[in-house]
Amino acid sequence: MDYKQAGVDIDAGNEVVRRIRSMARGTFTPGVLSEIGSFGGLFRLDAAGISDPVLVASADGVGTKLRLAFLTGIHRTIGIDLVNHCVNDILVQGAQPLFFLDYLATGRLEPDVAVQIVAGLSTACRENGCALLGGETAEMPGFYADGEYDVAGFIVGAVARDRLIDGSAITPGDALIGVPSSGLHTNGYSLARRIVFDLAGLDVDSHVAELGTTVGAALLEPHRSYLPIIRPLLPSGLIKGMAHITGGGITDNLPRILPKGTAARIDPAAWQVPPVFEWIQRTGHVPDDDMRRTFNMGIGLIIACADVAADRVLADLAAAGEPHAARIGRVTGEGDGVRYVAP
Amino acid sequence: MDYKQAGVDIDAGNEVVRRIRSMARGTFTPGVLSEIGSFGGLFRLDAAGISDPVLVASADGVGTKLRLAFLTGIHRTIGIDLVNHCVNDILVQGAQPLFFLDYLATGRLEPDVAVQIVAGLSTACRENGCALLGGETAEMPGFYADGEYDVAGFIVGAVARDRLIDGSAITPGDALIGVPSSGLHTNGYSLARRIVFDLAGLDVDSHVAELGTTVGAALLEPHRSYLPIIRPLLPSGLIKGMAHITGGGITDNLPRILPKGTAARIDPAAWQVPPVFEWIQRTGHVPDDDMRRTFNMGIGLIIACADVAADRVLADLAAAGEPHAARIGRVTGEGDGVRYVAP
Repeated sequence: MDYKQAGVDIDAGNEVVRRIRSMARGTFTPGVLSEIGSFGGLFRLDAAGISDPVLVASADGVGTKLRLAFLTGIHRTIGIDLVNHCVNDILVQGAQPLFFLDYLATGRLEPDVAVQIVAGLSTACRENGCALLGGETAEMPGFYADGEYDVAGFIVGAVARDRLIDGSAITPGDALIGVPSSGLHTNGYSLARRIVFDLAGLDVDSHVAELGTTVGAALLEPHRSYLPIIRPLLPSGLIKGMAHITGGGITDNLPRILPKGTAARIDPAAWQVPPVFEWIQRTGHVPDDDMRRTFNMGIGLIIACADVAADRVLADLAAAGEPHAARIGRVTGEGDGVRYVAP
Repeated sequence: MDYKQAGVDIDAGNEVVRRIRSMARGTFTPGVLSEIGSFGGLFRLDAAGISDPVLVASADGVGTKLRLAFLTGIHRTIGIDLVNHCVNDILVQGAQPLFFLDYLATGRLEPDVAVQIVAGLSTACRENGCALLGGETAEMPGFYADGEYDVAGFIVGAVARDRLIDGSAITPGDALIGVPSSGLHTNGYSLARRIVFDLAGLDVDSHVAELGTTVGAALLEPHRSYLPIIRPLLPSGLIKGMAHITGGGITDNLPRILPKGTAARIDPAAWQVPPVFEWIQRTGHVPDDDMRRTFNMGIGLIIACADVAADRVLADLAAAGEPHAARIGRVTGEGDGVRYVAP
């Protein structure tokens, strides 16, 4: 018995590695010192030109959004989702991305699927100025169903120590600015799938008039990167804190940046909840609280700044290409957590 | 329908996060600026005291060794395996580990299992002087069978640029020193399991006289970290290259550090192959070539150095606590790859 009979095909793996390597090379920035295939990826931090740098790192997956990729056969956007999710997670602390590594695990490696995923990773890495520095492709017979996989991403960025954004300067009275999401991003898919597929009996090709597209297209919409619109704002120093609205929604994520003794008041009428969330809520009879603790509800990023700075931040966002950000609430000194009330 | 009905228990997740946070805090080194639970983990590179640092990063999993953990209910060593594997992958380029992040994915989160895994991660991180800086715990209903999970690790280390080890100085005539492995490490488990469980019909509790222990104990033996014995040797500058012998064995891993135009001659009689490999080979009637391309065969790390430096390297290894390293071959100028021949 050899390794291939046991379900692991090293040659197929090597072929995928060759194709991946070439795509990854296209993302390399001046900091990269190594070729994919070294034991570790090498990155010269001084190439980033950041004085007194603090490294900011994050690990993430895309959750059960993967199921949509399995159902549609579209895997490229999963790679985009993963990179952008990671980029946003370190951006909220003021960091610019330096490099990214992925972990891709399958039962039996399907080269075309792996290549699609890495094509998405590479595209998003390039768009974010982030090197795809390495990764691991694991073939684990019996761990994943045929045609299924899991993928995790790991990002390292850097920020000058005196530009670190951690929310500690947030005080009652500060404004909370909501920046639109591009869809469900990468959270809430277990609930969304149960409602859409099990309860409503739809499939990925079902057209939903209200959404103007198919179920698959609406739910696969990629997680956007906030880097292009936030990067131009960082030098101003006006941003006191940022929350990336991921699993747990505004309810669980906004408090992660609020100092002890502060809370948030969010006006649910301050923005238009996108049709996809309203459709999911109505179809699944989901209570408001659960929706808000599960989905981003159309707000993928919240910025905290002084009330007097809010108009300037909104103008800067518009100038950077995001005209649809809006004040959605404010920081208060009462209680803790998030309350949803009209102002 | 709410999120919990859909299979995701945010409160159980939060409870695990609290327990994980406290274990992770115990690994924190002076470089860590953040608490677990921030969007990104923060690390001050200057705390590592490395001049002109190059970052070295790697992503890894433990492969189907996980199946042994599922069968035995022992999950702590998986965490140790993962960290040590990652530490070795960057150590071979001369890097000391700075921080580690994990990605843990399950179908339904079993808090005790997650806590066992993170206990192992924390122990190994502490032993390697590496901060457990963060991670992601993903509950993905329907993706993993009950009681199963996958786990990936991401490590970042640093090395002074003029201390970077990349094998480029390796020349024909150099000595190859083999350092013992502690068992299968984290590779070859798909084949090992097929042979031991399917072919031989054993189970994890079966006692194997030849191994002096049970199948479960022999196969779960943790992947060792080479940091404690290699770190003292790094300042000497005698090490030209190191290969971590992982998936693909010596056959596929040693060539990763050999410059173009060089090859390796390995003397298979130069070390005693440990009983666990002989037992697997005999039980599965596995050809030599497949064994050597699948398992580490008792050699977990290979060091390349000038022939005249080899005795000094062996003495330094012995002084650092590893008296069982040995010359196992040499670099040649003929062909490429690895040939197994008596000298």
